[in-house]
Formats: sequence, structure tokens, C-alpha cells
Amino acid sequence: MANAASNCWVGVDLGGTKVLAGVFDQRLKLLGSAKLSTRAERGVEIVLERIGRCVGEALEAAGKKRSDVAGVGVGAPGAVDVARGVVLFAPNLPGWRNIPLGRRLSKALGLPVVVGNDANVCTLGVHEVELGGRPRQLVGVFVGTGIGGGLILQGRLYEGACHTAGEVGHMIIEVNGPKCGCGNRGCWEALASRTAIFRRIREALQSGEKTVLTEWLGSELQDLRSNDLRKALERGDKLVHRILMQAADYLGIGLANLINLLNPEVVVLGGGLMQAVGDQLLPRIQRTARQLAMPGTARRLRITASKLGDEAGITGAAVLAQRWAQSR
Amino acid sequence: MANAASNCWVGVDLGGTKVLAGVFDQRLKLLGSAKLSTRAERGVEIVLERIGRCVGEALEAAGKKRSDVAGVGVGAPGAVDVARGVVLFAPNLPGWRNIPLGRRLSKALGLPVVVGNDANVCTLGVHEVELGGRPRQLVGVFVGTGIGGGLILQGRLYEGACHTAGEVGHMIIEVNGPKCGCGNRGCWEALASRTAIFRRIREALQSGEKTVLTEWLGSELQDLRSNDLRKALERGDKLVHRILMQAADYLGIGLANLINLLNPEVVVLGGGLMQAVGDQLLPRIQRTARQLAMPGTARRLRITASKLGDEAGITGAAVLAQRWAQSR
Repeated sequence: MANAASNCWVGVDLGGTKVLAGVFDQRLKLLGSAKLSTRAERGVEIVLERIGRCVGEALEAAGKKRSDVAGVGVGAPGAVDVARGVVLFAPNLPGWRNIPLGRRLSKALGLPVVVGNDANVCTLGVHEVELGGRPRQLVGVFVGTGIGGGLILQGRLYEGACHTAGEVGHMIIEVNGPKCGCGNRGCWEALASRTAIFRRIREALQSGEKTVLTEWLGSELQDLRSNDLRKALERGDKLVHRILMQAADYLGIGLANLINLLNPEVVVLGGGLMQAVGDQLLPRIQRTARQLAMPGTARRLRITASKLGDEAGITGAAVLAQRWAQSR
Repeated sequence: MANAASNCWVGVDLGGTKVLAGVFDQRLKLLGSAKLSTRAERGVEIVLERIGRCVGEALEAAGKKRSDVAGVGVGAPGAVDVARGVVLFAPNLPGWRNIPLGRRLSKALGLPVVVGNDANVCTLGVHEVELGGRPRQLVGVFVGTGIGGGLILQGRLYEGACHTAGEVGHMIIEVNGPKCGCGNRGCWEALASRTAIFRRIREALQSGEKTVLTEWLGSELQDLRSNDLRKALERGDKLVHRILMQAADYLGIGLANLINLLNPEVVVLGGGLMQAVGDQLLPRIQRTARQLAMPGTARRLRITASKLGDEAGITGAAVLAQRWAQSR
């Protein structure tokens, strides 16, 4: 059990490039946060150490001590055995296979730690904090390097038989389509993620098309980021606009599949790409998804973009820690 | 409440071409059944009358009276408002829009009636009777004229926000693929249903390919049925074999999507096409689905064909009636 004096929760968002930690009060208000680069290439031990340091910095920013913390939740980018707190594998964290993240971090911090899949955790955060825990059925879709998903079904986080449910990014929507990082072809994330968009822009450049992006990134589009897409749109770039609208259509097609299958009340979109250009994409995504959904399935449906942005992960991780403490 | 002397349950499978009714004892053993053509083209009233007659004939076959029946369940081919027993729409039953099937049939039979979607009901039957209610997560896929689906999640039938969940047949798996009856393109059922297979065989004939099917069905392949596919395979027909294996691959692709998304313990396949040629299709479906599923998601997974065949619908409808009585 948590100490009676413990009155806050820590949420950690472990990503391939950065670690975020946030300290939340009992009502899930953010008191302070910190960010560090992950340095995943330096190996598991270094990453574990950096997570601990990031939590320490977040506590400092919030003006809290370790003894104030009732529990820590972590969202990790991969398949997680939630019951044991083990990261089974994480494609974007080299060397992470069967790492007992929960136990290791708990020992280092002297605090209870619970671990979940990052997209599940983000969905939990949006459900609890942004939507007040109301929708009984919620599909969360997070578009960035890949496409992650989380499902709230019958009011609870749905994880399936081995905690791997919600792998929406590898839904095949174009048989024999472009190759995906997973080895299959035509996966949703090979068609509609930021990675897919960047690939299409580079292919267009190679075939002689023009874009303002080269003005500030050079002909190789080095260090291309989501925010460059926004800047290009603001400059009226036709190529970027066309490729983004195509991605929005693919996003809408995948959402229609999820809507037909799960008949949710709410679909919420988040992730880096949505944060950068979501306002441009959303109307087109909504229109395509509604056009393709079966009659009746979209009657009570709302398709929306999350306002939590970068904070969805740490918020959801804090919710996870809170839920877990309550369930014990 | 059911009469104390009432000791059996009636399950009705309402299809576009035929109505089946079965009488089951408390332990869901089939005591007797009957079958009638639906005559959907003659309108709603005639169909309602025929359902009543079919139930009467099944009772006679089982040696039971109406007063022996504790409740009636019906699986209907379309979107159903389960709480109100209303068929909202049913693409294969002309004129069926907002038909209060539960109330009408209850009045005609003098018995409590509960109505559900046919694929959901079949999945319930397989789950309860064939799998002993064990899998917590089960995906049922029924391949015939179309592709229907039912989901058991966290041990219960999952119906979504407006009871339309499980519309697996309209999952788009080939953007810009062949036109589907629903108006969209590249739906699973436009690629892998019996309808899709028959269309491909006819197209192949038109482009000059040969098949033994024409020997007994003529050059127009009139009255082509699933069992003709079996007969053609037994005669070593190369065209039919090739088109069936292609359909098996498409079935495997769609299953992989469902496995990645829902991480079930069991996927069960049923329906007319599986009954006729399931033994030929299943190994290829299993191989494709497992190849495309994400690592880890298929660890505890079994992909199997239902042995209930034609009886899945009436069995599941009896289960539905039983559950519904228990929940009141």
C-alpha cells in the first residue's frame, strides 16, 4: 500500500528518442515535468539510468520528494507483459528483449512501478483526463513514426490474450502495397504514418517535383520533421498538400475499418503528426471515415483530435499507476 | 420468468433464403429441427408467418409443446437493436427496415423472444457449445455470400456502441480493389467471399480459361454452388484450385488484421464456403494469417474451423435465449 502521506503519481513516457516524466496530483493535474534524450543506442542500462534521472528532475520541477509519490506508471514502445512489468520487445529500443523494466525501476526508485504499452497508455490518458472516463468504447490512434493504437472496450482498457491487442499500425489495407518496417506489405503505417509521408515526399523529389522544403532543408531534405510540413503548408506548397491529403485518406480508410469492426462512440487521434498538422488533416480524415463506415455504425460516433499532445503519454502512465494501486 | 415446467429453448436462424429452427434441451442438446424457405420476396408478413410455422414444425419434430418452451432466440441477417428486438435493416430481406421482430414473433408464439445479429449469434453458439465457453477472446468469421463476424471479448459478446460491432466483411484490405455490394471498394468480402470466388471463376471463363464446372453447369455456370467447388477440386480442376487458394490468402490477410488488432485466443471459421471446402482452405488460411501476424500476437492462438456447420445459427440463438432469460 502507498504511504498515507503519498499524494502524487509519476507518469513516464519512454520513447525511442526521448524520455518524458510528469508528476501529477491525486486529481491528475500536472505539477511538473522533465524531458531527456533516451540514448537508446547506448544500451539498456544507460536507458534505465536516464529514466530514473528524468523522474528525479520531474520531482524537482514539481517541488516533490520521492516519499510523496504513491506510484509510478511507464508507457513503453513495444510489447509489454503487464502483469510482470516486462518489456518483451521494443523495435525502437535496441537490445530491449525481455527486460524487467518494472522490477528494475522499482528497485532503483524505491517505488511501486507498473508498465504498459505506450499507445494503450496514451489512450487511457485521453479517456480518463480528456474525456472524463465517459465513452464505453474508445479507439485511440497515434500517428508518428508508426501508427499505434489503444482500445477501451466496455469501459476498460482492452489488451487481448497476451497484452498485444491494438496493433492497428499493421492492419493491411493495401495488399501488395509499400513495404512496411515489419516485413509485410501495405500496412496502415506504411501508407499513412509520418515515415510514409516523408518517403513519398522524397520519392516525388527524385522524380523531379518541386517543394519549398528544399529551400531550408537542402535537396536531401535532411532532418525533415513534422513541423516542416506545417511550414510548407503555410507557404502554400502543393506537393506537401497533395501528399498530406493522400495520407489523410489512408487514415480515414483505416479508421473506417476500425469503426466497422468495433463500433466505438469516440475515435481520438493523437501523436506527433497530428500535433503538427492535425487541423489540416482532421476534416478530410473525418469525411473519408464517415463515407466508408457502414450505415448505422457511425450514428453515435465522434472523430476528434486529442488536445493532450505530448502530455498524453505521461498523463496516461499516471492513470495506469493510479488504477493499478486501486486494484491491489 | 419461464414456466417451471418449461425445459427447452428454441433457436431460429433467419436467412435470406431459408429459415431454420431448432429445439434444444437445458444442456443445449438439439432435440429436433425444421427448415423452410424464407420467401423474403413476398414481404415481411409472409416471412413472420413462416418463422412461426418453422418453429411449430421444429417443436413437432422434437416432440415438444409450446408450453415446454422457456424462450426463443432469433439470429437475423442485418443490424439489430437487441434491447428492443428490432431489425433495423437487413440487406438480404427486402422491406426489412425497423421491423419489431421480437415483439411480433412473441405475440404470434405467446413466448418470450430475443433477437440478435446472425454472425454474433453463430459466434455465441460456437463459443458456448463447441468451445465450452472457455476462450476469453474469440473471433468468429463466417464466409458465405458475404463475410460476417462476431466478437467475444473479455468473455462476453461484444456489440459496440449501437450493436453493429463485428462488421468484418467490410474491412477494406485492398484500396481501389473490386467493388463491394456495400458501395465501397476492396472490402474483405469483395475479395474472399463465395460471391467473390464465383465472380472470379466467371471472369476467368470469359477470358477463355477452362474448368470442369461447365461440364455439368453449362457455359453460364448456372446455379453454381459451394459444393460444385468441392466437386471440381476432386476432379483436379486447376482453375478452381487457383482461385480458391487466392481466396484463402485473402482470408488469411483479413484474419491477420483481426489477430493484430484483437489478439484473440481462438479464431473460428464457419459458413457455407467453409462447410463445402474448408478442409482445402484451412491450412493455407492458417499459414498466411500466422505469417502476417505480429510476433507475439499469435503465441497462444488457435485458428480452427467450426464443426457446428448449419447448426451454429440455431444453437447460438438458443444460447442467446437462455442468457437473456438468466439476465432478467
